[in-house]
Amino acid sequence: MSLLPKSLSRVIESFERLPGVGPKTAQRLAFYLLHVPQESLEQFAQSLKDLKSHTVLCSICKNVTEQDPCIICVHPGRDQQLFCVVEQPTDVLSIEKTGKFQGVYHVLHGCIDPLNNIGPDEIYLADLIKRLSKLGTGSVEVILAMNPNMEGEATAMYITRQINELAANGGKPVKVTRLAHGLPVGADIEYADEVTLSRALEGRREF
Amino acid sequence: MSLLPKSLSRVIESFERLPGVGPKTAQRLAFYLLHVPQESLEQFAQSLKDLKSHTVLCSICKNVTEQDPCIICVHPGRDQQLFCVVEQPTDVLSIEKTGKFQGVYHVLHGCIDPLNNIGPDEIYLADLIKRLSKLGTGSVEVILAMNPNMEGEATAMYITRQINELAANGGKPVKVTRLAHGLPVGADIEYADEVTLSRALEGRREF
Repeated sequence: MSLLPKSLSRVIESFERLPGVGPKTAQRLAFYLLHVPQESLEQFAQSLKDLKSHTVLCSICKNVTEQDPCIICVHPGRDQQLFCVVEQPTDVLSIEKTGKFQGVYHVLHGCIDPLNNIGPDEIYLADLIKRLSKLGTGSVEVILAMNPNMEGEATAMYITRQINELAANGGKPVKVTRLAHGLPVGADIEYADEVTLSRALEGRREF
Repeated sequence: MSLLPKSLSRVIESFERLPGVGPKTAQRLAFYLLHVPQESLEQFAQSLKDLKSHTVLCSICKNVTEQDPCIICVHPGRDQQLFCVVEQPTDVLSIEKTGKFQGVYHVLHGCIDPLNNIGPDEIYLADLIKRLSKLGTGSVEVILAMNPNMEGEATAMYITRQINELAANGGKPVKVTRLAHGLPVGADIEYADEVTLSRALEGRREF
Protein backbone atom coordinates (compact mmCIF):
# COMPACT_ATOMS: atom_id res chain seq x y z
CA MET A 1 0.00 0.00 0.00
CA SER A 2 1.68 3.16 -1.16
CA LEU A 3 0.64 6.27 0.70
CA LEU A 4 1.86 8.76 -1.85
CA PRO A 5 -0.07 9.53 -5.05
CA LYS A 6 1.84 8.10 -8.02
CA SER A 7 2.27 11.50 -9.67
CA LEU A 8 3.82 12.82 -6.47
CA SER A 9 6.24 9.92 -6.05
CA ARG A 10 7.30 10.26 -9.69
CA VAL A 11 8.28 13.88 -9.07
CA ILE A 12 10.13 12.84 -5.90
CA GLU A 13 12.00 10.15 -7.85
CA SER A 14 12.99 12.66 -10.54
CA PHE A 15 14.37 15.06 -7.94
CA GLU A 16 16.18 12.26 -6.12
CA ARG A 17 18.18 11.50 -9.25
CA LEU A 18 19.74 14.98 -9.16
CA PRO A 19 23.18 15.24 -7.57
CA GLY A 20 23.16 16.40 -3.96
CA VAL A 21 19.39 15.94 -3.56
CA GLY A 22 18.50 13.31 -0.97
CA PRO A 23 15.13 11.63 -0.34
CA LYS A 24 14.06 14.20 2.27
CA THR A 25 14.92 17.19 0.06
CA ALA A 26 13.22 15.58 -2.93
CA GLN A 27 10.08 15.05 -0.85
CA ARG A 28 10.16 18.63 0.42
CA LEU A 29 10.55 20.04 -3.11
CA ALA A 30 7.76 17.87 -4.54
CA PHE A 31 5.32 18.88 -1.79
CA TYR A 32 6.32 22.49 -2.32
CA LEU A 33 5.44 22.22 -6.01
CA LEU A 34 1.91 21.14 -5.06
CA HIS A 35 1.30 24.77 -4.05
CA VAL A 36 2.75 26.24 -7.23
CA PRO A 37 0.37 27.39 -10.02
CA GLN A 38 -0.09 24.83 -12.80
CA GLU A 39 1.24 27.41 -15.27
CA SER A 40 4.62 27.54 -13.53
CA LEU A 41 4.78 23.76 -13.49
CA GLU A 42 4.11 23.66 -17.23
CA GLN A 43 6.85 26.23 -17.79
CA PHE A 44 9.26 24.19 -15.69
CA ALA A 45 8.29 21.06 -17.65
CA GLN A 46 8.72 22.81 -21.00
CA SER A 47 12.12 24.20 -20.02
CA LEU A 48 13.30 20.69 -19.13
CA LYS A 49 12.09 19.30 -22.46
CA ASP A 50 13.78 22.08 -24.42
CA LEU A 51 17.00 21.97 -22.42
CA LYS A 52 18.96 19.64 -24.64
CA SER A 53 17.18 20.19 -27.95
CA HIS A 54 17.88 23.94 -27.83
CA THR A 55 21.56 23.73 -26.83
CA VAL A 56 24.63 22.59 -28.76
CA LEU A 57 28.36 22.49 -28.13
CA CYS A 58 30.23 25.26 -29.95
CA SER A 59 32.24 23.51 -32.66
CA ILE A 60 35.22 25.78 -31.92
CA CYS A 61 35.47 26.12 -28.14
CA LYS A 62 33.12 23.28 -27.03
CA ASN A 63 31.22 25.58 -24.70
CA VAL A 64 27.47 25.00 -24.26
CA THR A 65 25.70 27.43 -26.55
CA GLU A 66 22.52 28.22 -28.42
CA GLN A 67 24.15 29.04 -31.75
CA ASP A 68 27.25 27.49 -33.33
CA PRO A 69 29.85 29.03 -33.22
CA CYS A 70 29.14 30.60 -29.85
CA ILE A 71 28.91 34.36 -29.23
CA ILE A 72 32.37 34.48 -27.65
CA CYS A 73 34.08 32.73 -30.55
CA VAL A 74 32.51 35.08 -33.14
CA HIS A 75 32.79 38.26 -31.04
CA PRO A 76 34.96 40.80 -32.95
CA GLY A 77 36.28 42.35 -29.72
CA ARG A 78 37.76 39.10 -28.46
CA ASP A 79 41.45 38.30 -28.80
CA GLN A 80 41.46 35.07 -30.84
CA GLN A 81 45.09 34.37 -29.92
CA LEU A 82 44.52 34.42 -26.15
CA PHE A 83 43.07 31.16 -24.91
CA CYS A 84 41.68 30.21 -21.55
CA VAL A 85 41.41 26.45 -21.09
CA VAL A 86 38.81 25.39 -18.50
CA GLU A 87 37.36 22.10 -17.32
CA GLN A 88 33.64 22.91 -17.36
CA PRO A 89 31.20 25.33 -19.05
CA THR A 90 30.38 26.74 -15.60
CA ASP A 91 34.03 27.82 -15.29
CA VAL A 92 33.51 30.03 -18.35
CA LEU A 93 30.64 31.75 -16.56
CA SER A 94 32.78 32.35 -13.47
CA ILE A 95 35.64 33.82 -15.47
CA GLU A 96 33.29 35.94 -17.61
CA LYS A 97 31.82 37.39 -14.42
CA THR A 98 35.21 38.90 -13.54
CA GLY A 99 35.12 40.91 -16.79
CA LYS A 100 38.92 40.70 -16.87
CA PHE A 101 39.33 38.25 -19.70
CA GLN A 102 38.99 39.37 -23.32
CA GLY A 103 40.24 36.26 -25.09
CA VAL A 104 38.47 33.07 -26.11
CA TYR A 105 37.86 29.84 -24.24
CA HIS A 106 38.38 26.17 -24.70
CA VAL A 107 36.20 23.88 -22.62
CA LEU A 108 37.67 20.43 -21.98
CA HIS A 109 34.51 18.97 -20.38
CA GLY A 110 36.49 17.23 -17.69
CA CYS A 111 40.10 16.64 -16.75
CA ILE A 112 42.51 13.73 -17.00
CA ASP A 113 41.54 11.44 -14.13
CA PRO A 114 43.01 7.92 -14.47
CA LEU A 115 41.25 6.72 -11.30
CA ASN A 116 37.90 7.33 -13.01
CA ASN A 117 39.12 6.02 -16.37
CA ILE A 118 39.21 9.45 -17.98
CA GLY A 119 42.23 9.78 -20.24
CA PRO A 120 43.26 12.57 -22.63
CA ASP A 121 40.98 11.13 -25.35
CA GLU A 122 37.86 11.42 -23.21
CA ILE A 123 38.10 15.21 -23.00
CA TYR A 124 38.25 17.82 -25.79
CA LEU A 125 42.03 18.05 -25.70
CA ALA A 126 42.86 17.07 -29.28
CA ASP A 127 40.54 19.88 -30.42
CA LEU A 128 42.60 22.38 -28.44
CA ILE A 129 45.85 21.22 -30.00
CA LYS A 130 44.21 21.38 -33.44
CA ARG A 131 43.07 24.95 -32.75
CA LEU A 132 46.57 25.92 -31.66
CA SER A 133 48.15 24.40 -34.76
CA LYS A 134 46.03 26.58 -37.06
CA LEU A 135 46.93 30.02 -35.71
CA GLY A 136 47.89 33.10 -37.67
CA THR A 137 50.69 35.54 -36.91
CA GLY A 138 51.07 37.35 -33.59
CA SER A 139 51.87 36.11 -30.11
CA VAL A 140 49.77 33.36 -28.63
CA GLU A 141 49.04 32.74 -24.95
CA VAL A 142 47.26 29.80 -23.39
CA ILE A 143 46.02 30.31 -19.83
CA LEU A 144 45.48 26.97 -18.10
CA ALA A 145 42.56 27.50 -15.71
CA MET A 146 42.11 23.97 -14.43
CA ASN A 147 40.94 23.40 -10.86
CA PRO A 148 43.83 23.51 -8.38
CA ASN A 149 43.67 19.84 -7.41
CA MET A 150 45.65 16.74 -8.37
CA GLU A 151 43.66 15.98 -11.53
CA GLY A 152 43.74 19.60 -12.63
CA GLU A 153 47.50 19.79 -12.13
CA ALA A 154 48.04 16.55 -14.07
CA THR A 155 45.87 17.84 -16.91
CA ALA A 156 47.75 21.14 -16.97
CA MET A 157 51.09 19.32 -17.15
CA TYR A 158 49.84 17.05 -19.93
CA ILE A 159 48.56 20.00 -21.98
CA THR A 160 51.82 21.91 -21.51
CA ARG A 161 53.76 18.92 -22.79
CA GLN A 162 51.47 18.62 -25.81
CA ILE A 163 51.85 22.31 -26.62
CA ASN A 164 55.64 22.11 -26.33
CA GLU A 165 55.66 19.09 -28.67
CA LEU A 166 53.62 21.07 -31.15
CA ALA A 167 56.16 23.90 -31.04
CA ALA A 168 59.05 21.42 -31.37
CA ASN A 169 57.43 20.00 -34.51
CA GLY A 170 57.46 23.31 -36.30
CA GLY A 171 54.39 24.93 -34.76
CA LYS A 172 54.19 28.47 -33.45
CA PRO A 173 55.77 29.12 -30.06
CA VAL A 174 52.99 29.43 -27.47
CA LYS A 175 53.24 31.09 -24.08
CA VAL A 176 51.61 28.84 -21.48
CA THR A 177 50.48 30.42 -18.20
CA ARG A 178 48.53 29.28 -15.16
CA LEU A 179 46.14 31.10 -12.84
CA ALA A 180 47.90 32.44 -9.74
CA HIS A 181 47.66 30.44 -6.54
CA GLY A 182 47.57 32.25 -3.24
CA LEU A 183 45.33 33.51 -0.50
CA PRO A 184 41.69 34.05 -1.49
CA VAL A 185 40.65 37.67 -0.96
CA GLY A 186 39.03 38.09 2.45
CA ALA A 187 40.70 35.01 3.94
CA ASP A 188 42.59 34.73 7.22
CA ILE A 189 46.28 33.87 7.03
CA GLU A 190 45.79 32.00 10.30
CA TYR A 191 43.43 29.53 8.66
CA ALA A 192 45.21 29.17 5.30
CA ASP A 193 46.62 25.70 4.61
CA GLU A 194 50.38 25.29 4.19
CA VAL A 195 50.29 24.58 0.46
CA THR A 196 48.24 27.70 -0.30
CA LEU A 197 50.45 29.81 1.95
CA SER A 198 53.67 28.54 0.40
CA ARG A 199 52.24 29.21 -3.08
CA ALA A 200 51.31 32.72 -1.91
CA LEU A 201 54.90 33.25 -0.75
CA GLU A 202 56.38 31.90 -3.98
CA GLY A 203 54.07 34.07 -6.05
CA ARG A 204 54.54 37.28 -4.04
CA ARG A 205 54.55 40.52 -6.04
CA GLU A 206 56.06 43.94 -5.54
CA PHE A 207 53.77 46.27 -3.62
CA MET B 1 25.03 39.76 -24.13
CA SER B 2 23.86 36.69 -22.27
CA LEU B 3 26.36 33.88 -22.17
CA LEU B 4 23.92 31.14 -21.27
CA PRO B 5 21.61 29.56 -23.84
CA LYS B 6 18.02 30.65 -23.14
CA SER B 7 16.81 27.09 -22.58
CA LEU B 8 19.52 26.60 -19.98
CA SER B 9 18.80 29.82 -18.12
CA ARG B 10 15.09 28.97 -18.08
CA VAL B 11 15.87 25.67 -16.32
CA ILE B 12 18.15 27.51 -13.88
CA GLU B 13 15.37 30.03 -13.14
CA SER B 14 12.88 27.22 -12.51
CA PHE B 15 15.23 25.54 -10.06
CA GLU B 16 16.02 28.84 -8.33
CA ARG B 17 12.33 29.28 -7.47
CA LEU B 18 12.43 26.12 -5.35
CA PRO B 19 12.89 26.61 -1.61
CA GLY B 20 16.47 26.14 -0.42
CA VAL B 21 17.93 26.17 -3.93
CA GLY B 22 20.30 29.08 -4.52
CA PRO B 23 21.69 30.37 -7.84
CA LYS B 24 24.83 28.19 -7.66
CA THR B 25 22.89 25.00 -6.91
CA ALA B 26 20.37 25.80 -9.64
CA GLN B 27 23.22 26.26 -12.11
CA ARG B 28 24.86 23.01 -11.02
CA LEU B 29 21.62 21.07 -11.39
CA ALA B 30 20.83 22.54 -14.82
CA PHE B 31 24.31 21.75 -16.15
CA TYR B 32 23.99 18.26 -14.71
CA LEU B 33 20.74 17.74 -16.62
CA LEU B 34 22.58 18.50 -19.88
CA HIS B 35 24.21 15.09 -19.52
CA VAL B 36 20.97 13.25 -18.77
CA PRO B 37 19.23 11.30 -21.59
CA GLN B 38 16.40 13.21 -23.27
CA GLU B 39 14.02 10.43 -22.23
CA SER B 40 14.64 11.07 -18.54
CA LEU B 41 14.10 14.79 -19.06
CA GLU B 42 10.77 14.11 -20.77
CA GLN B 43 9.75 11.87 -17.88
CA PHE B 44 10.71 14.56 -15.39
CA ALA B 45 8.73 17.12 -17.40
CA GLN B 46 5.68 14.86 -17.64
CA SER B 47 5.74 14.13 -13.90
CA LEU B 48 5.74 17.88 -13.18
CA LYS B 49 2.79 18.47 -15.51
CA ASP B 50 0.79 15.64 -13.96
CA LEU B 51 1.68 16.53 -10.39
CA LYS B 52 -1.34 18.66 -9.59
CA SER B 53 -3.85 17.29 -12.08
CA HIS B 54 -3.44 13.75 -10.71
CA THR B 55 -3.65 14.65 -7.00
CA VAL B 56 -6.55 15.83 -4.86
CA LEU B 57 -7.07 16.55 -1.18
CA CYS B 58 -9.00 13.80 0.60
CA SER B 59 -12.41 15.29 1.43
CA ILE B 60 -12.30 13.63 4.86
CA CYS B 61 -8.75 14.01 6.20
CA LYS B 62 -7.36 16.67 3.77
CA ASN B 63 -4.29 14.57 3.04
CA VAL B 64 -2.83 14.70 -0.49
CA THR B 65 -4.13 11.66 -2.34
CA GLU B 66 -4.82 10.10 -5.70
CA GLN B 67 -8.37 8.94 -4.92
CA ASP B 68 -10.97 10.60 -2.73
CA PRO B 69 -11.48 9.48 0.04
CA CYS B 70 -7.85 8.48 0.58
CA ILE B 71 -6.73 4.91 1.24
CA ILE B 72 -6.25 5.55 4.96
CA CYS B 73 -9.75 6.95 5.45
CA VAL B 74 -11.39 3.99 3.70
CA HIS B 75 -9.06 1.31 5.13
CA PRO B 76 -11.16 -1.21 7.12
CA GLY B 77 -8.31 -1.96 9.55
CA ARG B 78 -8.01 1.66 10.67
CA ASP B 79 -9.54 2.88 13.92
CA GLN B 80 -11.90 5.65 12.78
CA GLN B 81 -12.20 7.01 16.35
CA LEU B 82 -8.46 7.57 16.83
CA PHE B 83 -7.29 10.78 15.18
CA CYS B 84 -3.83 12.11 14.62
CA VAL B 85 -3.82 15.82 13.79
CA VAL B 86 -0.75 16.95 11.85
CA GLU B 87 0.37 20.16 10.20
CA GLN B 88 1.56 18.85 6.83
CA PRO B 89 1.02 15.85 4.52
CA THR B 90 4.70 14.99 4.97
CA ASP B 91 4.05 14.50 8.69
CA VAL B 92 1.60 11.73 7.76
CA LEU B 93 4.39 9.98 5.87
CA SER B 94 6.74 10.24 8.83
CA ILE B 95 4.19 8.85 11.27
CA GLU B 96 3.16 6.07 8.84
CA LYS B 97 6.80 5.03 8.61
CA THR B 98 6.83 4.19 12.32
CA GLY B 99 4.05 1.64 11.70
CA LYS B 100 2.80 2.33 15.24
CA PHE B 101 -0.32 4.28 14.41
CA GLN B 102 -3.48 2.49 13.29
CA GLY B 103 -5.93 5.38 13.42
CA VAL B 104 -6.80 8.06 10.87
CA TYR B 105 -5.28 11.46 10.21
CA HIS B 106 -6.36 15.02 9.89
CA VAL B 107 -4.04 17.33 7.99
CA LEU B 108 -4.35 21.01 8.92
CA HIS B 109 -2.09 22.26 6.08
CA GLY B 110 -0.37 24.73 8.37
CA CYS B 111 -0.64 25.95 11.92
CA ILE B 112 -1.98 29.08 13.58
CA ASP B 113 0.70 31.70 13.05
CA PRO B 114 -0.52 35.26 13.72
CA LEU B 115 2.84 36.76 12.70
CA ASN B 116 2.31 35.41 9.19
CA ASN B 117 -1.40 36.24 9.16
CA ILE B 118 -2.50 32.62 9.43
CA GLY B 119 -5.49 32.31 11.71
CA PRO B 120 -7.70 29.29 12.55
CA ASP B 121 -9.77 29.90 9.40
CA GLU B 122 -6.77 29.58 7.09
CA ILE B 123 -6.14 25.95 8.06
CA TYR B 124 -8.47 22.93 7.93
CA LEU B 125 -9.49 23.23 11.56
CA ALA B 126 -13.26 23.66 11.19
CA ASP B 127 -13.26 20.39 9.21
CA LEU B 128 -11.66 18.61 12.15
CA ILE B 129 -14.28 19.91 14.58
CA LYS B 130 -17.01 18.89 12.12
CA ARG B 131 -15.54 15.38 11.90
CA LEU B 132 -15.43 15.12 15.68
CA SER B 133 -19.05 16.27 16.03
CA LYS B 134 -20.29 13.42 13.81
CA LEU B 135 -18.82 10.46 15.66
CA GLY B 136 -20.56 7.24 16.63
CA THR B 137 -20.31 5.35 19.91
CA GLY B 138 -17.04 4.26 21.51
CA SER B 139 -14.17 6.20 23.00
CA VAL B 140 -12.51 8.88 20.90
CA GLU B 141 -8.90 10.04 21.11
CA VAL B 142 -7.29 12.94 19.31
CA ILE B 143 -3.49 12.93 19.21
CA LEU B 144 -2.15 16.41 18.56
CA ALA B 145 1.06 15.93 16.55
CA MET B 146 1.94 19.53 15.82
CA ASN B 147 5.56 20.57 15.60
CA PRO B 148 7.07 21.30 19.03
CA ASN B 149 7.53 25.03 18.45
CA MET B 150 5.63 28.14 19.49
CA GLU B 151 3.15 28.06 16.59
CA GLY B 152 2.56 24.33 17.06
CA GLU B 153 1.92 24.78 20.78
CA ALA B 154 -0.49 27.63 20.15
CA THR B 155 -2.37 25.57 17.55
CA ALA B 156 -2.55 22.61 19.93
CA MET B 157 -3.95 24.81 22.70
CA TYR B 158 -6.51 26.33 20.35
CA ILE B 159 -7.66 22.91 19.10
CA THR B 160 -7.94 21.59 22.67
CA ARG B 161 -10.13 24.55 23.61
CA GLN B 162 -12.37 23.99 20.58
CA ILE B 163 -12.73 20.28 21.37
CA ASN B 164 -13.61 21.05 24.98
CA GLU B 165 -16.21 23.57 23.84
CA LEU B 166 -17.69 20.91 21.58
CA ALA B 167 -17.97 18.52 24.55
CA ALA B 168 -19.45 21.26 26.72
CA ASN B 169 -22.13 21.86 24.08
CA GLY B 170 -23.40 18.30 24.24
CA GLY B 171 -20.81 16.62 22.03
CA LYS B 172 -19.03 13.39 22.85
CA PRO B 173 -16.21 13.58 25.38
CA VAL B 174 -12.90 13.36 23.53
CA LYS B 175 -9.56 12.39 25.01
CA VAL B 176 -6.91 14.83 23.77
CA THR B 177 -3.27 13.73 23.89
CA ARG B 178 0.03 15.12 22.66
CA LEU B 179 3.17 13.43 21.39
CA ALA B 180 5.77 12.92 24.14
CA HIS B 181 8.57 15.43 24.42
CA GLY B 182 11.97 14.26 25.58
CA LEU B 183 15.40 13.23 24.44
CA PRO B 184 15.62 12.03 20.83
CA VAL B 185 16.92 8.46 20.67
CA GLY B 186 20.68 8.46 20.12
CA ALA B 187 21.17 11.95 21.54
CA ASP B 188 23.67 13.09 24.16
CA ILE B 189 22.28 14.41 27.45
CA GLU B 190 25.26 16.77 27.52
CA TYR B 191 24.05 18.55 24.40
CA ALA B 192 20.31 18.53 25.10
CA ASP B 193 18.77 21.97 25.64
CA GLU B 194 17.18 22.78 29.00
CA VAL B 195 13.60 22.78 27.76
CA THR B 196 13.91 19.34 26.19
CA LEU B 197 15.66 17.98 29.26
CA SER B 198 13.06 19.37 31.66
CA ARG B 199 10.29 17.88 29.47
CA ALA B 200 12.17 14.56 29.57
CA LEU B 201 12.27 14.73 33.37
CA GLU B 202 8.61 15.65 33.65
CA GLY B 203 7.61 12.87 31.30
CA ARG B 204 9.80 10.15 32.90
CA ARG B 205 8.38 6.65 32.94
CA GLU B 206 8.88 3.63 35.16
CA PHE B 207 11.68 1.38 33.94
